[in-house]
Amino acid sequence: MKTSFIILAATLLMTAFPTQAQTSDRRLLSMEDVILNRELTPKTLPVRWIGQSDSYAWIDGTNLCATDARNNKRRTIISLDELNSLLSTSFKSFPAYTFDDEQSLVVAAFGMRNTIDLKSRTVVSKHKIPVGQNLTRQSGKGGLYAYTRDNNVYCFDGEREHAITSFSDPNIVCGQSVSRNEFGISGGIFISPDAKKIAFYQKDESAVTDFPLLDITTRTGTLKNIKYPMNGMASEVVSLGIYDVASRKTVYVEVTDFDKERYLTNITWSPDSERIYIQILDRPQKNVHLNVYNASTGKFISQVLTEHNDRWVEPQHPLVFITGDPTKFIYSTNNRDGYWNLYLCNDGGVIKRLTATDADVKYVAQDAKNIYYTSAEVSPIDNHLFKVDIATGKQTQLTKAEGWHDVVVSGSGRYFVDTYSSLKVPRVVEIGRTDGKPAREIFRADDPTVGYNFAEISLGSVKSADGKYDNYYRLIKPLDFDPSKKYPVIVYVYGGPHSQMVKNTYLGQLRRWEMYMAQRGYVIFVMDNRGTSNRGAEFEKAIHRQCGQAEMQDQVAGLKWLMTHDWVDAERIGVHGWSYGGFMTISLITNYPDIFKVGVAGGPVIDWKWYEVMYGERYMDNTHNNPEGFAKTSLINKAKDLKGKLLICQGAVDPVVVWEHSLSFVRECIKNNVQVDYFPYPCAEHNVFGKDAVHLHQKITNYFEDYLR
Amino acid sequence: MKTSFIILAATLLMTAFPTQAQTSDRRLLSMEDVILNRELTPKTLPVRWIGQSDSYAWIDGTNLCATDARNNKRRTIISLDELNSLLSTSFKSFPAYTFDDEQSLVVAAFGMRNTIDLKSRTVVSKHKIPVGQNLTRQSGKGGLYAYTRDNNVYCFDGEREHAITSFSDPNIVCGQSVSRNEFGISGGIFISPDAKKIAFYQKDESAVTDFPLLDITTRTGTLKNIKYPMNGMASEVVSLGIYDVASRKTVYVEVTDFDKERYLTNITWSPDSERIYIQILDRPQKNVHLNVYNASTGKFISQVLTEHNDRWVEPQHPLVFITGDPTKFIYSTNNRDGYWNLYLCNDGGVIKRLTATDADVKYVAQDAKNIYYTSAEVSPIDNHLFKVDIATGKQTQLTKAEGWHDVVVSGSGRYFVDTYSSLKVPRVVEIGRTDGKPAREIFRADDPTVGYNFAEISLGSVKSADGKYDNYYRLIKPLDFDPSKKYPVIVYVYGGPHSQMVKNTYLGQLRRWEMYMAQRGYVIFVMDNRGTSNRGAEFEKAIHRQCGQAEMQDQVAGLKWLMTHDWVDAERIGVHGWSYGGFMTISLITNYPDIFKVGVAGGPVIDWKWYEVMYGERYMDNTHNNPEGFAKTSLINKAKDLKGKLLICQGAVDPVVVWEHSLSFVRECIKNNVQVDYFPYPCAEHNVFGKDAVHLHQKITNYFEDYLR
Repeated sequence: MKTSFIILAATLLMTAFPTQAQTSDRRLLSMEDVILNRELTPKTLPVRWIGQSDSYAWIDGTNLCATDARNNKRRTIISLDELNSLLSTSFKSFPAYTFDDEQSLVVAAFGMRNTIDLKSRTVVSKHKIPVGQNLTRQSGKGGLYAYTRDNNVYCFDGEREHAITSFSDPNIVCGQSVSRNEFGISGGIFISPDAKKIAFYQKDESAVTDFPLLDITTRTGTLKNIKYPMNGMASEVVSLGIYDVASRKTVYVEVTDFDKERYLTNITWSPDSERIYIQILDRPQKNVHLNVYNASTGKFISQVLTEHNDRWVEPQHPLVFITGDPTKFIYSTNNRDGYWNLYLCNDGGVIKRLTATDADVKYVAQDAKNIYYTSAEVSPIDNHLFKVDIATGKQTQLTKAEGWHDVVVSGSGRYFVDTYSSLKVPRVVEIGRTDGKPAREIFRADDPTVGYNFAEISLGSVKSADGKYDNYYRLIKPLDFDPSKKYPVIVYVYGGPHSQMVKNTYLGQLRRWEMYMAQRGYVIFVMDNRGTSNRGAEFEKAIHRQCGQAEMQDQVAGLKWLMTHDWVDAERIGVHGWSYGGFMTISLITNYPDIFKVGVAGGPVIDWKWYEVMYGERYMDNTHNNPEGFAKTSLINKAKDLKGKLLICQGAVDPVVVWEHSLSFVRECIKNNVQVDYFPYPCAEHNVFGKDAVHLHQKITNYFEDYLR
Repeated sequence: MKTSFIILAATLLMTAFPTQAQTSDRRLLSMEDVILNRELTPKTLPVRWIGQSDSYAWIDGTNLCATDARNNKRRTIISLDELNSLLSTSFKSFPAYTFDDEQSLVVAAFGMRNTIDLKSRTVVSKHKIPVGQNLTRQSGKGGLYAYTRDNNVYCFDGEREHAITSFSDPNIVCGQSVSRNEFGISGGIFISPDAKKIAFYQKDESAVTDFPLLDITTRTGTLKNIKYPMNGMASEVVSLGIYDVASRKTVYVEVTDFDKERYLTNITWSPDSERIYIQILDRPQKNVHLNVYNASTGKFISQVLTEHNDRWVEPQHPLVFITGDPTKFIYSTNNRDGYWNLYLCNDGGVIKRLTATDADVKYVAQDAKNIYYTSAEVSPIDNHLFKVDIATGKQTQLTKAEGWHDVVVSGSGRYFVDTYSSLKVPRVVEIGRTDGKPAREIFRADDPTVGYNFAEISLGSVKSADGKYDNYYRLIKPLDFDPSKKYPVIVYVYGGPHSQMVKNTYLGQLRRWEMYMAQRGYVIFVMDNRGTSNRGAEFEKAIHRQCGQAEMQDQVAGLKWLMTHDWVDAERIGVHGWSYGGFMTISLITNYPDIFKVGVAGGPVIDWKWYEVMYGERYMDNTHNNPEGFAKTSLINKAKDLKGKLLICQGAVDPVVVWEHSLSFVRECIKNNVQVDYFPYPCAEHNVFGKDAVHLHQKITNYFEDYLR
């Protein structure tokens, strides 16, 4: 969001009305519709760019087709019959596929990776796909795989398996994600571009305490211990190994920065496979060192740049090398200009800021001349594609239709697939042109809610409690809304970092349960508060050392605006949220007991001292250096203030917000003779899915119906 | 109960009306009154027979007094001041005391056992009391102690400690109770009468599975594993060691009966300390061998008798040797004549039946001529003292007043302390005479409920579902009962073996929460069904291999009788129970969904396959030989039938009915999309006590108020 862009007070941006007149013969949502009915999600047309060409592949019935974006000419690549004949398979619908290049179609079947040469119409190679976890394949045509079994990492060179590590100590874990998936980490294996080396994470969890989970699905009930590093306590120690495929030797990168509980994030291979870049973060998350190491020896080569922030720094994106000039790369940070922006660097540091945008920016693609990125600069609730000329810095917006655009640029750089929606537009797929010329629509989804009686949804914004920001909301008025009546309100809240609940997507990012409740006479209000994402660093960091405080102030500010409407029944305000939203729910009902009468909190954080090191120490510092922040935000201290009806739901084998949180809150309520309600989902982890979620949402609904109606 | 004693249909036996006219200025119970107010329990006068004399001791203010039962003459034994002076203590009230003999008063202080000679008014001995668990002291004046620390057993001979066992394997547990306290077992150390030998249980739990409990009171949450042998699974293996104090050597009793998972129950020393008697039970609990062993060698001497029953046998009482003839002893069994009766035996077996009573009988005491026992022969809800002449078999009832008598016979055998109450009598203490002459009342408690507005309580009986028995009930009508109105009913149920909820005691064994609910307009109905205690073996064994079935039929029979009254609202029937009563509650609400609209179940057994070996295999046989019984009684199979509102409460560290039960039921409800409510008490074991119980009963109350009112 541009800071000069100010909307005074609450501004209604747009409203989605049902497209048909309201008639009573249209259906209401069932709870199965809410959770399980995929027909209520707009359809799409999946397409995939073929190699470096201007053509994209898509499935038309049983044929795999290609369309040339230049002239819209379509051809059949291969029929399902021919594919089945070539592979001796009997797929009933076209299976998942990729292209190694324009002539090489790749399809997996029966544990083999089959490459079909489209010119000769023959299977030119069959590679065995090894069995393991975290399976990682080299890019391009080769057959090198790396993967894990239990705690060790292995590679498969096309013929045989080699153990890269062989630790028997269960506290040493190799090849898996580390740092509990923070800092953009999602895997633990990194194959070099030339496929001659395999980098892998190794973590030592010896010092991390166990947390016991009870598995009730076994005959006698069994223990499943997990390693859970809690705030301020001993944490895991991570290193990076580099395995040489030819010599079968491993070196470890010699990191000496900070202390041993440092974070090794955003591992990036140099294009020549000779060096490896690591964004190293100290445990307090105040400093980043972007270092480069020799991949053959593990030795330190140089430090590219450093970052520091008195609150926190949070690297999230690996480097991206410039295709035409491998001495340069793109570095993403939000620690330089207040927003996530892209910076052109070399090993000597930053050469220049590539995106001069007061909005959060995300790298998408590049060609010889331009970098493509999406950003929030039109509006925080819209996502548009831009290009910036590397040489001149000229920025050009490439998507025009309002809404949220997801884009994939073609290998040639001349076209992009643009899949977008907005409040009233279910989904459109277009082939856009990076030269700015008009796009061609190739798919438009029907409105899947036709036949259902949906209530009015509107998006708008309301001032944050400190008056500095516009916080965006989604508001759903009850079905058959009558402004002369008074309606109960349910605030649905998440409110935590890295989240955005309100977007200008189809139905404004609606969770269908909200519509279910609106159909039953509730006003639904959902708002992103300070601390959430896509609004720049200052907005996000307002929560530092006191999670929940700014967030609550903003939620109450939004609600107070809502309560200026006569149709809001101020005596019937409820709140519901899960995880951080569970924390927010209990924070709100205990800090504002006169406003919130009913709450349903799922998997709530109760005291940040029980939450994990990586996420928690970023926002809260730690129990030793911020005791007053922990005391202020701890809901243990607030249990005695609970006046309303509160239901807590909890996955009983939750490895994220462990059971100690909600059970401790219950214990404190009991101590204070305060009534609270509780429901465990015995086999659920942090979230509840599938049929269990039908049960859960019926329970949540019943609770509001029992106590808020 | 005599089988010839038949009450047709339901017979109202007695009714307790409030003794004052109902006036609105009398108080209602608060929830704190219900759980914590000790003033609502009738006061008593604790007395203690002094040695073998006819005098009893009691505390009058700060003085320890003695009264001679023969002439009612009272004297002061010692004042608190003198006691404090002798012991250099500063007790504010008279401490706990015992007598070694008539002249030797014993008081513990500061870890020392002080013996005061009442003639010389001096402290004649001070013995150190060692620190340990399961502390067991030899009888009489000696200073030998045995006790446990962790898993081993030690003795203290007055000067130093000796380790009797020294196992480092935590699966070997010595000196503690075994068999999960079934078969009358409550301790694990048995010192011989001459204090020269110490017998102790030793159990090997290596094969028993662990069940994990989560302790949330620690910084990071920690695991507390317990050994929990589940039905049909590997169990503990028990042996009996005998330690010789002089030689410091241990022998193990050489038991060869049955297989290794046999039960060694009711350990009894012979009076001369040379032999040890064991009532050995096979794991299926169909056979008992009463064997005698040489205490010096552990060798088998002889088999006294055996018992067999196709359903079960359940030894519960150690042998009692005849004072004047140590070759004879009293043996208790309910496996010979349909009821618990006493049998005179010697090492050759049964000599004769001592008590010829068609009612359950319990040994109390003996003198040279008579055996004293209490029994249910007047009525199952009354408990009276009898004597039987050993030689002639003549039986004489010694207590006359209706109600429930707890008696302690004097050392001389001439007198007994009789503490009794009945529906309208709060508590009376009398000194009775075993010659049958009139007793002398020494204490009568005030009615502690004066000032409270209590509703009418009545006791009566209703036919069991099979028409064979009179089942006794307690019925509480709502305060200000108006028979022209319709009232909701709450059935409170336990229903399991070894229980008796309805007795002719003060207010009929009322749990005060029942009165709390009656004051709020509910009818309360509590009835003992088939399977419960004090009614003979056939009544108890009706439940065999299908726990809950006969019990439910009886509860419904009782309820159907209740529902013949116009003032019962058949649309508002609730049920509440804990443990076996939790099992009964869920059994009833799922098997009779059209009758029961609301249930609250605490710590419920859900499937007997998850319950312990010792208790469970007695009543259910095991999962291998009774699959149809397990299937029929499993509430997992009934979750889908739940229609009413059901709240399950559960101690989260329950080591008796482990969490797998109720969590599995919840899981099954979720699978079937059936709504159920739940509340954990995070630090509670199988029961909830103290302030937590105030919270619990408020929760139970709220649930009925929300859904049954």
